[in-house]
Amino acid sequence: MVGVGLIGTGFMGKCHAIAWNAVGTVFPDVDKPRLVHLGEVNDDLARRKAGEFGFARGSGDWRAVVNDTEVDVVSLTTPNQFHPEMAIAILEAGKHLWCEKPMAPSFAGAEAMAEAAKKSGKAAVLGYNYIQNPAIRHIGALLEEKIIGDVNLVRIEMDEDFMADPEARFFWKHEAASGYGALDDFAVHPLSLIKVLFGRVARVMCDMVKPYADRKVASGGRRAVETYDIASVLMHLENGVAGTLLVNRSAWGRKGRIAIQIFGSKGSILYDQERMNEFQLYLTADRPTEQGYRTILVAPHHKPMIPSCRRPAMGWASTTSR
Amino acid sequence: MVGVGLIGTGFMGKCHAIAWNAVGTVFPDVDKPRLVHLGEVNDDLARRKAGEFGFARGSGDWRAVVNDTEVDVVSLTTPNQFHPEMAIAILEAGKHLWCEKPMAPSFAGAEAMAEAAKKSGKAAVLGYNYIQNPAIRHIGALLEEKIIGDVNLVRIEMDEDFMADPEARFFWKHEAASGYGALDDFAVHPLSLIKVLFGRVARVMCDMVKPYADRKVASGGRRAVETYDIASVLMHLENGVAGTLLVNRSAWGRKGRIAIQIFGSKGSILYDQERMNEFQLYLTADRPTEQGYRTILVAPHHKPMIPSCRRPAMGWASTTSR
Amino acid sequence: MVGVGLIGTGFMGKCHAIAWNAVGTVFPDVDKPRLVHLGEVNDDLARRKAGEFGFARGSGDWRAVVNDTEVDVVSLTTPNQFHPEMAIAILEAGKHLWCEKPMAPSFAGAEAMAEAAKKSGKAAVLGYNYIQNPAIRHIGALLEEKIIGDVNLVRIEMDEDFMADPEARFFWKHEAASGYGALDDFAVHPLSLIKVLFGRVARVMCDMVKPYADRKVASGGRRAVETYDIASVLMHLENGVAGTLLVNRSAWGRKGRIAIQIFGSKGSILYDQERMNEFQLYLTADRPTEQGYRTILVAPHHKPMIPSCRRPAMGWASTTSR
Amino acid sequence: MVGVGLIGTGFMGKCHAIAWNAVGTVFPDVDKPRLVHLGEVNDDLARRKAGEFGFARGSGDWRAVVNDTEVDVVSLTTPNQFHPEMAIAILEAGKHLWCEKPMAPSFAGAEAMAEAAKKSGKAAVLGYNYIQNPAIRHIGALLEEKIIGDVNLVRIEMDEDFMADPEARFFWKHEAASGYGALDDFAVHPLSLIKVLFGRVARVMCDMVKPYADRKVASGGRRAVETYDIASVLMHLENGVAGTLLVNRSAWGRKGRIAIQIFGSKGSILYDQERMNEFQLYLTADRPTEQGYRTILVAPHHKPMIPSCRRPAMGWASTTSR
Repeated sequence: MVGVGLIGTGFMGKCHAIAWNAVGTVFPDVDKPRLVHLGEVNDDLARRKAGEFGFARGSGDWRAVVNDTEVDVVSLTTPNQFHPEMAIAILEAGKHLWCEKPMAPSFAGAEAMAEAAKKSGKAAVLGYNYIQNPAIRHIGALLEEKIIGDVNLVRIEMDEDFMADPEARFFWKHEAASGYGALDDFAVHPLSLIKVLFGRVARVMCDMVKPYADRKVASGGRRAVETYDIASVLMHLENGVAGTLLVNRSAWGRKGRIAIQIFGSKGSILYDQERMNEFQLYLTADRPTEQGYRTILVAPHHKPMIPSCRRPAMGWASTTSR
Repeated sequence: MVGVGLIGTGFMGKCHAIAWNAVGTVFPDVDKPRLVHLGEVNDDLARRKAGEFGFARGSGDWRAVVNDTEVDVVSLTTPNQFHPEMAIAILEAGKHLWCEKPMAPSFAGAEAMAEAAKKSGKAAVLGYNYIQNPAIRHIGALLEEKIIGDVNLVRIEMDEDFMADPEARFFWKHEAASGYGALDDFAVHPLSLIKVLFGRVARVMCDMVKPYADRKVASGGRRAVETYDIASVLMHLENGVAGTLLVNRSAWGRKGRIAIQIFGSKGSILYDQERMNEFQLYLTADRPTEQGYRTILVAPHHKPMIPSCRRPAMGWASTTSR
Repeated sequence: MVGVGLIGTGFMGKCHAIAWNAVGTVFPDVDKPRLVHLGEVNDDLARRKAGEFGFARGSGDWRAVVNDTEVDVVSLTTPNQFHPEMAIAILEAGKHLWCEKPMAPSFAGAEAMAEAAKKSGKAAVLGYNYIQNPAIRHIGALLEEKIIGDVNLVRIEMDEDFMADPEARFFWKHEAASGYGALDDFAVHPLSLIKVLFGRVARVMCDMVKPYADRKVASGGRRAVETYDIASVLMHLENGVAGTLLVNRSAWGRKGRIAIQIFGSKGSILYDQERMNEFQLYLTADRPTEQGYRTILVAPHHKPMIPSCRRPAMGWASTTSR
Repeated sequence: MVGVGLIGTGFMGKCHAIAWNAVGTVFPDVDKPRLVHLGEVNDDLARRKAGEFGFARGSGDWRAVVNDTEVDVVSLTTPNQFHPEMAIAILEAGKHLWCEKPMAPSFAGAEAMAEAAKKSGKAAVLGYNYIQNPAIRHIGALLEEKIIGDVNLVRIEMDEDFMADPEARFFWKHEAASGYGALDDFAVHPLSLIKVLFGRVARVMCDMVKPYADRKVASGGRRAVETYDIASVLMHLENGVAGTLLVNRSAWGRKGRIAIQIFGSKGSILYDQERMNEFQLYLTADRPTEQGYRTILVAPHHKPMIPSCRRPAMGWASTTSR
């Protein structure tokens, strides 16, 4: 019986908890895990959340979770800046790790985590959830099968409107300290899809844009925005495929759009995450007068997510590869 | 702490178990229930499933669940023919009941269940899941608000293709003993939506059709099909609205279509369960040159399901009304 | 060189004139017709319209067109009540006839026209334009080829909103003298499609509904509406196919919807005239995990309209058959 | 009565002829033009086409059309390389000009044409047909009205599959002499839309890609492809709007896609030419729970094309401006 630890109980911590609670029921052929230890910022909160989430105990010190001998695997869902220290501690304690994305605020931190993962020999997985979508998995299988021949172009867009309101106030995502903006704020998602479906990016050219130059601050004046809500990228992948990556977090009307267009020598594939239960396939193998994009609804016969997925999650762990 | 019992561990039993396991995590303001007792056809299976589903104990006799004093509410997910006897026993034992649909194979059985529910004073709910969809709930709120004025026509279709293959063999759903066919096999779902959104049906005229007259049997010959895969209904509702209910369980290409068209004096609303995260709204209040169906993606600001839903589930229980 | 006459210059008369003017340019292998004689209600209007429409002469007496020896074929686009008298005169004068739909206000009138057409031996065609749509033609060819196997169900809807406004005044289409309402006002269009694609209707059951009981009149009061804007029909076709025909001319949001769903033993076909340049095809012959509705855009390789269309227009003429 | 000349009777020449023939019927308030003189490569062809297209006379020498005193306006639909010489001759002869796009193979040629147009004082129009689409015109009016506030991003894609087949042979569009490839072959269309809707492009960064390195030649071997079927452009417009222009003439499945996404501070607009009779509009002015893209079907109340269009065609003529 696998013992589970959880550090962090925010939005993603809650998601991990729901998932761990469902394992026994959903996968009868998998040993039901034991929810052992939950870590939060103080003992009171930790105990209350442990009760809600079904964990046996809770601690206000995250190291108590890491050092708990009954814990075999830890879900790490704390804010990003804590990832390197905690992840490395978890791996060095000999536990498997399921760390939420993005990996780390700095490249050095990410490299240190990868190094620790390699040394540990444990499973170390980043929580790129969209790559586990059965539609994405099945598209990956179709690409491997070369059903659309040799891919020559991929276009991917990610658009949401959570920063689209020009009247909304300046907040921390507008500060340069938070990063570039859309490019690292959520382009990690389309990048995880590119990585899983096609491999690494070799060359890029990027244009970053600020739709709103300044924003109101609480004190009454306005402050210059330091990050870029829009990024448009020309890219060449290592495998020779060309493409574009376009992201916009100020895109009124878009709620969770990740639109992918993949063009090959024998057909093409389309996908939009706002309708994540379907994808579209065009095949030149069809009779010419009946060629058209098939809207395929995802069903149980499509790529299962777990545990038989052939491609591991976006990976820096010793157990993953591509 | 509410004590939960579960009788039946098939497809829907598993769904109920996943839901009960998630309550604590999903609803922090609700007391986490205790999963007490699971009933199955024999002790071995009951104990194994109790382990998988996180229940404290399991019994091969369903009456042990009913009589367990630590059980406050029972999920009843056994085959339909057992519903009346078990539901009535559960209610008479003073427990709340969550019974899967359809209610009962006979009208008499259903009436006896309703009577027991009234007498018991307990919450008694049927598992019409589609009516809890936030899109449906929100459509209901828009209709109450009369955003599309007075409704004058509703069309509803439900189509799937699980019986569309003419080469598939004769099985029990082709026998008259199983009922009329599509009309009672799955028209209960669109009827539950009609009931929740508009109220009761007053008058009907129905045409039932067999797409395939006979089917292969294992022994080598063919047997006449006794049920109707297609049903088309003209109907008038009690509130004066006219409409049609069209169902087809031999509809190649349809996987889970429940398409609703609602026309009113100031607009119209469309919904299709194959894209269950969205609905469409047309309003004459919009400027004429910009009138068009809005495709609205369901988001957290739409109708919450639980616990604040104003309209109870399809109801025969003393606590429900409309 | 074929000599052309035209009687009537309203909306459809203008359409016929545009078509006749384009024949030479569009069909280089067809002799360019000569636009000879145009008939209207008085000489002045007839001459003015002849000038605009490119006809050599115009007359205020329609019999002058019928008796013009240089006229070989007449486009008849006058109001419906004049069709029988004029059509019969045209055919008896030995001219070919292209008569706008609907055929005639009374069954007796239509029969007299059909009889005259048979006797004349001339081409006599009704202007059911939607059946000439390349998408419809191609769907017809696919049905003949049995690409979706044996058809077992057809659903057809026609919805527009030109009478949806409850504040609009009572006008002649609300009078019983104009007919039943939606059923004959525009259901002739979906019926023409049913006839061309499947053949004749054998049995029907119809429910007709008035969304608005009365309407304002100019004088200030209100008058009871005598026609039905909504009609819902259960039908069995002569070829054994079952189906429904649902029409609504008070359907807010619908502009020119004619939605067809055709279900067969090996697939299904969908079409919606609001997107008349495409249709959808689902085939069980496709690999199961890649089955889905293909959205097929109509292109030159689809069914040509003229002159090689194998199926004549909706027909009562001696030269037509099906 | 305006006298019309036509030089060139290929695909676009035929289109112009159909249009000229329909003017009288379609626009009763416009003087019906007189189709005077048609020019082709020899007298025989010119006379035959004049007959088919309804022109009074035909000549094998295009200068006869230019010098015909009864000709007031000339449609120039010859291959692109002839545009400068012929267009300048037409304008210098004091005739109005309707010249098909693209304007000229060289920048110098285009500038000479623009200069001649300015000097002539005549109407000189390029045939960018897509900018006359009522949906595009109406989108332009909505942008002027600032219904979506200040535009901050525009994405435009144009994709077709006429060069997508890797087995198709090398032909002239693969030669460097034909230009860059997709960028000038058909990106002129999306550029014309950008120009009409937003103004001029200020800065660009472009990536051009060859999906197929070489192609079969008739003699049996293979030849290196010299043009680029794919072009991806980052751009900044003069008005400060940023955006991308992505084109692909090897895009299997795309038949005539010109997809536009326009994001502003109060909403967004979408359009796809494969469904050219509709566009989509998202407005933050709508109530939050009912915000969604409206699919607006183009109708007579949308922007009329002629003659009241406020914005002239893509322009280099003295009578046009923006």
